[in-house]
Amino acid sequence: MQIKSSVHDYAVEEFGTFAETLTAARTAQPLYLIDRRVHELYPGEFASVPPESCVLIDASEKQKAFENLTPVFLEILRHGMRRDWTLIVIGGGVLQDIGCFIATVLFRGARWELIPTTLLAQADSCIGSKSSINIGPYKNQIGTFYPPHRVLLTDDVLRTLPWDEIRSGLGEVIKLQLLSSRADYAELMTDLATFKGEGATLAKWTRRSLTVKQPYIETDEFDRGVRNLLNYGHTFGHAYESATDFGIPHGVSVILGILTATFVSAQLGLVDAQHYLELKTALAPWHQPYGDVLRAAERERVFAAIRHDKKNTRGVVQCILTRGPGAMEKRAVSLEDELVPAVNTFIDGELS
Amino acid sequence: MQIKSSVHDYAVEEFGTFAETLTAARTAQPLYLIDRRVHELYPGEFASVPPESCVLIDASEKQKAFENLTPVFLEILRHGMRRDWTLIVIGGGVLQDIGCFIATVLFRGARWELIPTTLLAQADSCIGSKSSINIGPYKNQIGTFYPPHRVLLTDDVLRTLPWDEIRSGLGEVIKLQLLSSRADYAELMTDLATFKGEGATLAKWTRRSLTVKQPYIETDEFDRGVRNLLNYGHTFGHAYESATDFGIPHGVSVILGILTATFVSAQLGLVDAQHYLELKTALAPWHQPYGDVLRAAERERVFAAIRHDKKNTRGVVQCILTRGPGAMEKRAVSLEDELVPAVNTFIDGELS
Repeated sequence: MQIKSSVHDYAVEEFGTFAETLTAARTAQPLYLIDRRVHELYPGEFASVPPESCVLIDASEKQKAFENLTPVFLEILRHGMRRDWTLIVIGGGVLQDIGCFIATVLFRGARWELIPTTLLAQADSCIGSKSSINIGPYKNQIGTFYPPHRVLLTDDVLRTLPWDEIRSGLGEVIKLQLLSSRADYAELMTDLATFKGEGATLAKWTRRSLTVKQPYIETDEFDRGVRNLLNYGHTFGHAYESATDFGIPHGVSVILGILTATFVSAQLGLVDAQHYLELKTALAPWHQPYGDVLRAAERERVFAAIRHDKKNTRGVVQCILTRGPGAMEKRAVSLEDELVPAVNTFIDGELS
Repeated sequence: MQIKSSVHDYAVEEFGTFAETLTAARTAQPLYLIDRRVHELYPGEFASVPPESCVLIDASEKQKAFENLTPVFLEILRHGMRRDWTLIVIGGGVLQDIGCFIATVLFRGARWELIPTTLLAQADSCIGSKSSINIGPYKNQIGTFYPPHRVLLTDDVLRTLPWDEIRSGLGEVIKLQLLSSRADYAELMTDLATFKGEGATLAKWTRRSLTVKQPYIETDEFDRGVRNLLNYGHTFGHAYESATDFGIPHGVSVILGILTATFVSAQLGLVDAQHYLELKTALAPWHQPYGDVLRAAERERVFAAIRHDKKNTRGVVQCILTRGPGAMEKRAVSLEDELVPAVNTFIDGELS
């Protein structure tokens, strides 16, 4: 598929094996920025990549802090990277955030290609141009819009993912199919009913998810309008991640956030309670037992995170709520009067 | 004047006094990033700006290092800045570099306005979108293209500039008029013959310089073609700054760089020696006695800097040379065979 961007258009290409993907990514002058764990997991595939072209980093929230990027920049420059080279980024969301940020500002914009290695990165974050960087106590307050020049997908690399990482990716897959339509969502849940990690199923829903996301990011690349709807489940999801010190994987938090947003929508009369109850049952296997982690979190930290979200101004929270599959909408909700009671009821009573 | 940019168009506006400029910059929610020295020099003008809205920093090469930006970001965030606020940057080139970089990546792009307080920033760098950031031993390898949303000029603020800062700004003014035409250059030198720092003369040549620069940056914002010509004098100038540990002010280095580029052009037979000799005489008052500083620099550091310039590949240097006023051109010059002997002859014999 071909993605339009105001920065530069780019292609998403599919390959058979990880080795074939690496071969396809090899440009005249590559410099590789690689998740250390991925590099360890695929020694055979990386045997053909010269170590002097590789910068290995940890895929952690701490590593994607602005104050921890200096050594990464310096290692890339010490490896001799120049403005006509290509940065090839291999890893999940954290690697993508770091690689995108570095490519945006190195030499005022370097060429970069992305090989996403998690389901979440493949099915969602690899298109849409965004990077998010933390600084001090502030999460994701720094960032850029700068898409890769090319995205290279292979489901081969998903076979080593832990089950929680699969579920984390499914969080965004489920979100996108709920945004799409009742039929797409139903088809996904039918597939998931018998799903045991098959690569073909993952490849199918990766492709379908990107197809749902594409028009949002092409119409509204800088996230000022309709793209906001992709935040369905995220205002709550981000707060749950933050309040549990990232004790819940991102996409699993999104599933819990989707349930919260749907519960709030039902409480406010936007959608009938039956839709919420269906979702609650259907999504339980995809978040359990992280509901317990959320219930154990300090409630005040949850609300503090919602309050400090960069999109919110005092007292009012901009939420993406739902009138059902394919019908999301942005609403200003009162934090004290509407959100706090609903979220308390949800966390206390709906997760067991 | 109105500048076109692929990011967003912006206006350059002129004001009478510095106080009037500050009033004009006051938006609904301003956060000021100010050169500490400028803040000290204008206590009356800043009396109306609440201290809790001000972040003061040093305008030093060290401060514009990536690794030293974290405290600046954190202070801005601790002052409560949010995505609907405006960052108002007040200072010279270093403040502009830091302010532009921060505005580019904070909240994935914040609104910012610029009040340039040096002649160099007013007459040259304030338009053209660029920021340049150092990291470790690497100069200007990080940066962005992100123009201010508005530039506010006042010659009032130039009256406190040291003479060397005036001369530094004149370096870029002279360069731009040489790029423009023989007539414009001659008119400038006539004005400079009797110049003693008058604000009206500075305002006139600020305006004229921006007018010369405008078509280059509008046609080629990302510096891939004709905008390269603005680097006339800079390959050498940057090397002279770096080899003297910034012992020569930027614009004065540019004057020395212009002379070098013209000397090299004459040596290569592009322009007659008479043009070089005229420039040598005319520009002497605007760089003396920094020729002595350059002569005292380790020659090997000068060539190392030219060799490591990000625009050069091994053995060949991309130079902007000249066939006379209004006729610059980019040429690949051999470092060992052509540049080293010419630059040695220039530094050893042409600066006394």
